[in-house]
Amino acid sequence: MSILVVGSVAFDTVQTPAGRADRVLGGSASYFSVAASFFAPVHLVAVVGKDFTEEHARLFRDRDIDLSGLSHLPGETFRWSGVYGDDINQRTTLSTELNVFQEFKPVLPERLRKSDFLFLANIDPDLQRSVLQQVKRPRLVACDTMNFWIEGKRASVLEMLKGVDVLLINDQEARELALEANTVRAARKILGFGPSSLIIKRGEYGAALYGSHAHFAVPAYPLLDPVDPTGAGDAFAGGFMGHLARSAALDDATIRQALVVGSVMASFCVEDFSLRRFQSLRPEQIRTRIKEFGRMTQYADPA
Amino acid sequence: MSILVVGSVAFDTVQTPAGRADRVLGGSASYFSVAASFFAPVHLVAVVGKDFTEEHARLFRDRDIDLSGLSHLPGETFRWSGVYGDDINQRTTLSTELNVFQEFKPVLPERLRKSDFLFLANIDPDLQRSVLQQVKRPRLVACDTMNFWIEGKRASVLEMLKGVDVLLINDQEARELALEANTVRAARKILGFGPSSLIIKRGEYGAALYGSHAHFAVPAYPLLDPVDPTGAGDAFAGGFMGHLARSAALDDATIRQALVVGSVMASFCVEDFSLRRFQSLRPEQIRTRIKEFGRMTQYADPA
Repeated sequence: MSILVVGSVAFDTVQTPAGRADRVLGGSASYFSVAASFFAPVHLVAVVGKDFTEEHARLFRDRDIDLSGLSHLPGETFRWSGVYGDDINQRTTLSTELNVFQEFKPVLPERLRKSDFLFLANIDPDLQRSVLQQVKRPRLVACDTMNFWIEGKRASVLEMLKGVDVLLINDQEARELALEANTVRAARKILGFGPSSLIIKRGEYGAALYGSHAHFAVPAYPLLDPVDPTGAGDAFAGGFMGHLARSAALDDATIRQALVVGSVMASFCVEDFSLRRFQSLRPEQIRTRIKEFGRMTQYADPA
Repeated sequence: MSILVVGSVAFDTVQTPAGRADRVLGGSASYFSVAASFFAPVHLVAVVGKDFTEEHARLFRDRDIDLSGLSHLPGETFRWSGVYGDDINQRTTLSTELNVFQEFKPVLPERLRKSDFLFLANIDPDLQRSVLQQVKRPRLVACDTMNFWIEGKRASVLEMLKGVDVLLINDQEARELALEANTVRAARKILGFGPSSLIIKRGEYGAALYGSHAHFAVPAYPLLDPVDPTGAGDAFAGGFMGHLARSAALDDATIRQALVVGSVMASFCVEDFSLRRFQSLRPEQIRTRIKEFGRMTQYADPA
């Protein structure tokens, strides 16, 4: 089954303790689609400027990602610049230039409206809702959002969540969305807003799944040499949705596996700047890491 | 096999979002010994003042904890006071009165020198080393420490670690001890200081085990109504050592199980102030939560 992702394509300038990358391909839809493409066909809907060249497009086409929904507008592509501290979990945004992204009004080509799986990457909740209105009963809708929208467009975020099955956010965003200081309580409350599953992304601490009767948690794969955490959350979502689409199943057991696949794809993402690690990544390397991940979490019942 | 713990007994005054407790029994050795007592015989070595009454002693005796190594000195028992923020993971110490703890010079009764398992709770590394010199080849030595000692008595901490098998600390302490910003790198370096296993305690994110060839991670049991996190790390250590002592085994599989048991005992600790939750805790409740914990971490191989 195929996946439709609506989000951003950007050029990032990133500095981390491991080095620096200038004006490299980034954006939520880029990370998501490349990670998901290892598991299922992906259709990307986003907007780029005239600085997005055939060379950039090739990076997606090499992974068989459908770019027919990518709008090309005059002007520059969205740019983001940030720096990570010695503690690589601490990020400071230096600049954000929306450029053509300001004019982004996703209109889905007719044949994409019947997608089975839809991922609404972190964009304006008004745009997320407009996409939801255009699609025809997808089997699963997942989405991401952030404090900027939760604070600034709370009503729209809550409206959007009514149409969403899986919400992927971090602890702090969950607490802010639910107005609850305790994450477990916040999760319960958010499950009342619409989503049947909530995934709390915890960065280097892994991820937790909250559902109506299930709770599941996975650690992060430990990296000796993390290079750049940018996009890890979107790569997680890509691996997560990719596994669901490949399995064509949405039961609890498959969702648990999808969290593991998401964690593994996030770990590869962090191993290099931009989408570079995915360019050389081979399916057997993914399988090997999934196996390692299993050894990292298994134990015999001590009861 | 039995466990010897050397650490503090204290009276704590604690305020959390859930309420307040005044002058209640606390201290690292108290939390550790009560949690461990569900699995193995425990001998406690600590110091108390004249305000430590028969009623307090009964709490330990009810759990068959041997108090023959508890020194009674004139003066007041160690007192600590702290407040937790709306985010219960944020703690501020309001006051620390060492009182009789300033004169604590642990001298082990002869019959305790042959203990199989030794836990050096978070006290002055000079005292931890003095205890190490008094014991005769324990099967396993575990210890805790904190930034205060890592910064103030680094050489002594490093000397102490040469005699330790398992070190239990948090992320930040590990990074400071290793002088490494990356936790995975820090862990590798610490394994070169002496311990064969390092357990990184991550509070609400669980715990990770780093060994020479093993990596293992467990989440924390999610609590809807945490009451007081004080002592959770020591309760974790108590469950961890308790399971090892009960199993009389130190292989990788048993150590993994011990992390799960530690996480479960830490979760009970947080459910009430002081040692209260342990006073009503029944072995079948521990087994039930261990089973729940299993469901929370299990998945079928997605590879």
